[in-house]
Amino acid sequence: MKGFRDFGPSDQAKRQAMFQKIQSSFEAFGFLPLATPALEYKDILMGKYGDDEKLVYSFKDNGNRDVAMRYDLTVPLARYVAQNQGQLALPFKRYQIAPVWRADNPQRGRFREFYQCDVDVVGSTSILADAETIVCLCRAIGAVGIKNYKVRLNDRQSMSSLGTLALRALDKVEKIGVDGVIAEMKEKGVAENEIDNAKLILAAGEAATAPEATTQLIKLLIEMGLTSDQVAFDPTVARGLDYYTGTVFEIILPDKPQFGTICGGGRYDNLVDTFSNQSLPAVGGSIGIDRLIEAMAEMDIVPPAPTVTALVLNLDEKLQSDYIKLTDELRQQGINTEFFYEPVKLDKQFKYAENKNIRFAVIMGEKELAAGTVQVKDITSREQQELKRDELINFLKK
Amino acid sequence: MKGFRDFGPSDQAKRQAMFQKIQSSFEAFGFLPLATPALEYKDILMGKYGDDEKLVYSFKDNGNRDVAMRYDLTVPLARYVAQNQGQLALPFKRYQIAPVWRADNPQRGRFREFYQCDVDVVGSTSILADAETIVCLCRAIGAVGIKNYKVRLNDRQSMSSLGTLALRALDKVEKIGVDGVIAEMKEKGVAENEIDNAKLILAAGEAATAPEATTQLIKLLIEMGLTSDQVAFDPTVARGLDYYTGTVFEIILPDKPQFGTICGGGRYDNLVDTFSNQSLPAVGGSIGIDRLIEAMAEMDIVPPAPTVTALVLNLDEKLQSDYIKLTDELRQQGINTEFFYEPVKLDKQFKYAENKNIRFAVIMGEKELAAGTVQVKDITSREQQELKRDELINFLKK
Repeated sequence: MKGFRDFGPSDQAKRQAMFQKIQSSFEAFGFLPLATPALEYKDILMGKYGDDEKLVYSFKDNGNRDVAMRYDLTVPLARYVAQNQGQLALPFKRYQIAPVWRADNPQRGRFREFYQCDVDVVGSTSILADAETIVCLCRAIGAVGIKNYKVRLNDRQSMSSLGTLALRALDKVEKIGVDGVIAEMKEKGVAENEIDNAKLILAAGEAATAPEATTQLIKLLIEMGLTSDQVAFDPTVARGLDYYTGTVFEIILPDKPQFGTICGGGRYDNLVDTFSNQSLPAVGGSIGIDRLIEAMAEMDIVPPAPTVTALVLNLDEKLQSDYIKLTDELRQQGINTEFFYEPVKLDKQFKYAENKNIRFAVIMGEKELAAGTVQVKDITSREQQELKRDELINFLKK
Repeated sequence: MKGFRDFGPSDQAKRQAMFQKIQSSFEAFGFLPLATPALEYKDILMGKYGDDEKLVYSFKDNGNRDVAMRYDLTVPLARYVAQNQGQLALPFKRYQIAPVWRADNPQRGRFREFYQCDVDVVGSTSILADAETIVCLCRAIGAVGIKNYKVRLNDRQSMSSLGTLALRALDKVEKIGVDGVIAEMKEKGVAENEIDNAKLILAAGEAATAPEATTQLIKLLIEMGLTSDQVAFDPTVARGLDYYTGTVFEIILPDKPQFGTICGGGRYDNLVDTFSNQSLPAVGGSIGIDRLIEAMAEMDIVPPAPTVTALVLNLDEKLQSDYIKLTDELRQQGINTEFFYEPVKLDKQFKYAENKNIRFAVIMGEKELAAGTVQVKDITSREQQELKRDELINFLKK
């Protein structure tokens, strides 16, 4: 289905390994998991995403209720926090790694179902929360194997002269250039004085003076372990979403700028309030795993993925019980092992191991069984050796 | 939203730990992961689930296409295999751990969104595939901490005298009793001769003679490591789904029979054919994680869940850089660590650690900093001790 993807075993094993690394990075910073459902009442999602609201998948369920598929992980978090007020230890630090759905026009690197990996801190106005969120996301990006990334920072407070439409246009400067931004502002009917302000911002570029809050945040980020090369104020960073109120940031790959933002986020001090009468300031960010994976593929960074270690070949139906015993032995030792079901030609069994990237074939006939040995063949190098049964386990474990 | 649930950090951490154990058990048997999208074309799902088809969430998307939310993981697998014929190493052994959606009437232990943990072998008629699927599921159930479970087996081939409606009624005997089954058959208009056959099956009960295929399967299961207590022929096991063609099985908890079937599956040799002109026999099964978790809670089996190990307290704003350094040091050593953002009263910080089940508070004031030490307080036992900075890491790691 257009915009939707299957991930076969080799891709999915890599994705799961990446999710695991990102999860560990999030947990190292004290973020704990939250899971919210795929469907929310439509009302919960409406009025949060500006123009993009039309991309929400919504429908009437069998009980004629208006429901909608999760568009991001931030609004469900805000709903959850508001619903569980008084029961959560504040600040509430949670991560969520889950798919979201957008009825977008599918194009290169943009899908209708994709995963987001989010961390958010709810209930603190401390700039330390902004800094930890950003460093944590950087650590996760580092953990999957990306060495060269750059955080671009800005502050919505210093952009109060620009309205939503102007901010959204400004945010596209990398994609459509300065003239494109101005043209979009005019087309959307942005006021003249806002356009003039945007022009000033664009003209100053990185020479502009950073807002005090951003300077302070950069200092903290460096104290937390990022290098001064990895962080910079960028007056054109605006982020498209309506709900940001302070810090906004993006992480890009300087080696692969064409992949754009692989991570973004910011402070949103009023979003939770829309569901509750208690004020709960928040800051968070999200890694877009799909762009990251595409960029990694182009950089030849291959995430290690677990696979099957050994295939016990089926040489002789009469030895089936012995094969079953051997297979069980290996599995009990934590070695991922398969036993080939049918005693077909060995060629076919080797072919299976090769297709499935199984590293070793374990061969045991009457002769080996009697001698208490096995033949082990390395499928990649095609080298074969005879090992005693008790040597086999150590051999496969290393 | 009725039938949908949020899982807060402590529940979700446990769930994730369980998914991880199940995943490892599946991988030990050589099953590899597949991910299919949440949405499928509606046509793909229709005609597969009998009466329950009305429980499929379906709607028209923004492009006016009829789409539906995944109802189980088996039909999407069949669609995937048919679409990728010729490119998959057969037998294709995959697992998928993912949510499915059913517009069911929510009741105890039954939800509109719930996870399934599936393993399936596609492309083999070998009874070894049936046996491995069942043993693998048992191992996964064992891995999450369940010691006492029982596999009940039957074969659809020996039940050919019963039609779909009769099978579906028969499958409910545990819930509604023999009279209930007969009553349902009459209500649904099942033919007299089928009702008579069902009566014979019910009357014979476990004294009935197992079909040859089931006897052979039981022998294999025992050879693969299950005990003879753990497996039995049960002529009333039918499974509700239309697509089963051979082996059908259920796993129950003898200590908690009220939770019913926590795992079920069977052989379905014709399902893939509905998407393709190549015949691809298959066998698989599915663990219902929600019932399993509820049952475990009642048996006081608590899955271990990762949490935050240490909270670095914020005693003094002037020491912020030192706290940041210490926190970073611990995280680099793989210790999940938080730093409290605001230098508020210690009471409040201890309370936070307690609420979030953080085990240790790390306390460092001017005095400790000068001496190169820290105070570590065990939040549970309330014991406190002074440690050198380099002793701290080993202390927290153990």
